[in-house]
Amino acid sequence: MSVALLSTGEEVLTGETVDTNSAWLASSLWDVDVDVRFMCTVGDALSDLVDALGLAAARAPVVIMTGGLGPTEDDLTAEAVAMWAGVEREESAEALAQIEERYRARGRPISAANRKQAVVPVGSSVLENRWGSAPGFSLEFEGTTVFCLPGVPMEMKHMFAEWVVPGLTPLNPPTLVRMRTFGLAESRLQATVGALDLGDAVLGFRAHIPEVQIKLRFPSRTDPDQRKDVVGRVAGVLGPALYTIDGGDLAETVVAALSAQGQTLALAESCTAGMISSWVANVPGVSSVLMNGFVLYSNESKVQLLGIPESLLAEHGAVSEPIARAMAEHARAKSGTDWGVGITGIAGPGGGSDAKPVGTVHIAVAGPAGVVHRHAVIPGDRMQVRLRAAGAVLHLLHCQLG
Amino acid sequence: MSVALLSTGEEVLTGETVDTNSAWLASSLWDVDVDVRFMCTVGDALSDLVDALGLAAARAPVVIMTGGLGPTEDDLTAEAVAMWAGVEREESAEALAQIEERYRARGRPISAANRKQAVVPVGSSVLENRWGSAPGFSLEFEGTTVFCLPGVPMEMKHMFAEWVVPGLTPLNPPTLVRMRTFGLAESRLQATVGALDLGDAVLGFRAHIPEVQIKLRFPSRTDPDQRKDVVGRVAGVLGPALYTIDGGDLAETVVAALSAQGQTLALAESCTAGMISSWVANVPGVSSVLMNGFVLYSNESKVQLLGIPESLLAEHGAVSEPIARAMAEHARAKSGTDWGVGITGIAGPGGGSDAKPVGTVHIAVAGPAGVVHRHAVIPGDRMQVRLRAAGAVLHLLHCQLG
Repeated sequence: MSVALLSTGEEVLTGETVDTNSAWLASSLWDVDVDVRFMCTVGDALSDLVDALGLAAARAPVVIMTGGLGPTEDDLTAEAVAMWAGVEREESAEALAQIEERYRARGRPISAANRKQAVVPVGSSVLENRWGSAPGFSLEFEGTTVFCLPGVPMEMKHMFAEWVVPGLTPLNPPTLVRMRTFGLAESRLQATVGALDLGDAVLGFRAHIPEVQIKLRFPSRTDPDQRKDVVGRVAGVLGPALYTIDGGDLAETVVAALSAQGQTLALAESCTAGMISSWVANVPGVSSVLMNGFVLYSNESKVQLLGIPESLLAEHGAVSEPIARAMAEHARAKSGTDWGVGITGIAGPGGGSDAKPVGTVHIAVAGPAGVVHRHAVIPGDRMQVRLRAAGAVLHLLHCQLG
Repeated sequence: MSVALLSTGEEVLTGETVDTNSAWLASSLWDVDVDVRFMCTVGDALSDLVDALGLAAARAPVVIMTGGLGPTEDDLTAEAVAMWAGVEREESAEALAQIEERYRARGRPISAANRKQAVVPVGSSVLENRWGSAPGFSLEFEGTTVFCLPGVPMEMKHMFAEWVVPGLTPLNPPTLVRMRTFGLAESRLQATVGALDLGDAVLGFRAHIPEVQIKLRFPSRTDPDQRKDVVGRVAGVLGPALYTIDGGDLAETVVAALSAQGQTLALAESCTAGMISSWVANVPGVSSVLMNGFVLYSNESKVQLLGIPESLLAEHGAVSEPIARAMAEHARAKSGTDWGVGITGIAGPGGGSDAKPVGTVHIAVAGPAGVVHRHAVIPGDRMQVRLRAAGAVLHLLHCQLG
């Protein structure tokens, strides 16, 4: 099975917005063993839309089109699909009923513009949109099925799962196992995991700084025990780089582990300057776990707020193992938490030296059994150094949580 | 002048990576008054590449192709362009010399795979790559010029500016004015700014949560005084929502203003939990400005670390005007800084009530002239609420800085 993706809208062609829908669709289609053959973006002109539909339909038996279902003049998807298939348009009683119901529930009248959203090509199947006002539709023409979904990501994602996936995938969809890793480059993961006997699993990746996600896609026929064997083999070569199977990101995984153990956390950040706190705090329900965060960008703040001895700073410098250890210990002690972390480093572009080049970071985790420390020189620009350093802290904490 | 963009690589079609190159190119082309007519992505198969080149060339006189210039087997751009144009390939002495020079400078030998990167279609112009190992090239065929650039964003951006832009734009390129705004929705900006007499300027937008950037593109013929009039007219309707013309983002603008005045900042964050500190700290050279950050996720931490009176918390609740004001004042006093900010709110999805729904935030800025406070109910999911709240804090601080 293969698919072509067609996204519409002048705002993509002018660079006003980034087309994240296509990347999300491509990844989600890979997960259910459907190939994307072709991706294409055109503006709102009717002739361009009809042209692009022809191109997409010539390249795959299924086309997923996003955008152009809104109430305004430049929303021309229904008109373009009708023209491409050589059919008329009509108001769908089903679509109109859905729109009316949605507006009634909100106590709002339905306008002529909204009513336009019920007009679809003759012969379409209406795809209900319970997450927004624009119903979608699908139409089959000369062996190609076109699914038309809204461009609003949240609506598009729900409707894709509800209406498109069941029509694309076999009765027995594949099983996907997601293994999230930190600390190994994608090229190295490709080499080591790719060299293993993966049975009938297909290997995929998803890169999202600072982590790399490994995806194993098993056909439904694969025996669960066999699947377990393969996952175990991959886990074996990943070692501690693997931090969760089918779980959330580093922050979600750490917060879940701390919550499960009823434990608490305090952070002392210098070069990351609140990035780790902010990341952890994006996990709903984190308030039982995250107690204090200290952003200690200056030497004075390290002394005044955390009580780090000035002599230690003078002797070793702010970016050093003793300071990272002291930050973790003092954050923990001052906050009365089970865990404390400390991080200090040089994010760049300035501030580096031969002894401590840009990217140098010292991280420490203080816990019930003592303090552990790691040191690294992280490549990349200022933002990348900070993101990877934040990941390294959470990964080290995760390892200590066991 | 119009252009078609062609990006290549299986990793985009499988959703492994997001194609940010196309969005960047689209925005940069808009800035120099070049229309993008068509964007398309295909995988690494030679036949798909040749097919896509044909589609792109039929739709615009200039094609910009990214990716497929590397040293590996699946880097087939030179082969595809040669096949599309019906020419042979040859090793370019110019390209080889550039590659050899680069490797020599690093004291590394050049491999057979690297040498392959010097092979281009006969008749090509080599485009020097001073930022990476793969030279690009351009080729004209039947009225279409194809520019082939590396897929690595940093290399692509430099080479686009150096080799593509001069060939695309007229002798007198347009002048771009970027006006960065916070606090007004894009639809409202479109309506109010779009209704003004903009002379011969073309209006564009770039949305990047939590800000919206307005772009005014003036033809080179526009008189500077006339340009000033138009910019002034737009600034007039934007009011305080406009925070910079041709400057950096909110954090860069605030840090620049504080630096210029030799002033310092401390932050006390609850719902944003370090996001503002982290954002501010991504500005290089921030260490003379950012002193302390307090992440106060719990009531206890507000009391213990900042000395907020328990009675105040008991009387008003943590998400309230008095607590935001106290956080700003205490952060400033405890840190001895010129400015202190406080933010407390309900990011969701849980924790809301009728009186304080999800999205409720109270923010305060304490400075030499006293404390100002704002209150808002921000729409969106947890991350959006936090991003917009962080923007609101920096915007309020910017307004106070004058």
